[in-house]
Amino acid sequence: MGHQGRASRDRMLVAAETLLREGGLAGAGIQQVVARSRAPIGSVYHFFPGGKNQLVAEALRIHGEKARALFESMLADTAEPLPDRFRTFARAAAAGFDRAGANKGCAIGSVALDLEAGDERLRKLCQDAFDGWIASIAKALPWADEARRRSFAEMVVAAFEGAFILSRARRSGKPFIAVGEWLATMVERFPSDTSRRKRRTRHGFASR
Amino acid sequence: MGHQGRASRDRMLVAAETLLREGGLAGAGIQQVVARSRAPIGSVYHFFPGGKNQLVAEALRIHGEKARALFESMLADTAEPLPDRFRTFARAAAAGFDRAGANKGCAIGSVALDLEAGDERLRKLCQDAFDGWIASIAKALPWADEARRRSFAEMVVAAFEGAFILSRARRSGKPFIAVGEWLATMVERFPSDTSRRKRRTRHGFASR
Repeated sequence: MGHQGRASRDRMLVAAETLLREGGLAGAGIQQVVARSRAPIGSVYHFFPGGKNQLVAEALRIHGEKARALFESMLADTAEPLPDRFRTFARAAAAGFDRAGANKGCAIGSVALDLEAGDERLRKLCQDAFDGWIASIAKALPWADEARRRSFAEMVVAAFEGAFILSRARRSGKPFIAVGEWLATMVERFPSDTSRRKRRTRHGFASR
Repeated sequence: MGHQGRASRDRMLVAAETLLREGGLAGAGIQQVVARSRAPIGSVYHFFPGGKNQLVAEALRIHGEKARALFESMLADTAEPLPDRFRTFARAAAAGFDRAGANKGCAIGSVALDLEAGDERLRKLCQDAFDGWIASIAKALPWADEARRRSFAEMVVAAFEGAFILSRARRSGKPFIAVGEWLATMVERFPSDTSRRKRRTRHGFASR
């Protein structure tokens, strides 16, 4: 594939990702991708012989990797205390949401709610993306109990996915701020215990 | 409208609600509602002269009221301590999700992620539904600081909306359990302060 081809292909993927974020699975049809990316319609099937399914699957994979990298950079060891990193991340998410037109959700979350019975491949892609984010977040949490780390990571992902929904309805990224503040507060109230050899208290997270 | 007519109309609304929960806005077309409800296609425009838009709007309003009643019954004063009510509610949500086929999200959340530029009326409906839930939940929280009550209520709604997304991707209601456990934990770590005349500590919630 030449430079030109690669550029068209990338443009189509970017268009598909944006369309998924704006209108879910139904919004990312071949027609819409062609219109948005200004690619010639013939080239869609050249680059994506599997048509819409393949295009959406690749766009979702890219979106999932981007989000994982964002979560990882949020949690990377920096000078900022962990709770504040949640606050900073949430503020950035809110500002990013507003700047992007206040009409873009998470591509994975949107597709997850649009899945039909036959979409097993797409469903698995959504599941894998979420599992990847949860694993990345869990790894960075300062608690010895793995079940607690995983469970909190799941809460983080759920809360941010939900913040996209509330923000879409409100056309404002403010809900991210509330979510970030409560996640930060939770981390503050569960101080690090990874330096202890054995935990003496149990909070019900390990039993699930 | 006779009994027969009322019954057809109700069947169409139930079908529209279910279709919105399964596939979002795109899944709830007139064709699909007719097929699902076994109503004669002519009667759709008889009962809903505004077509799909009116049908979807009414179905969303019904769904929103149902969810508000559920949140209110969860938080109604019972013998169960407040944190446990979140756990009980989450367990019920997880079981309900699985029992319903593990493929149904929240109609309001699904539509919020599918909104297009022209859907201002539907967007407003989603916003009003969320605001209603948030107000109902906030009212029941045991903290003097109204900003904190509202902010936590927003977190509750975001977390449950996100749990639907994760559960759809996983085809299992388990994510609700993690979310319920963390919401319960947060409530446990912010004990009631409504008996105090003045709060002496601030946690940053009032300033947003």
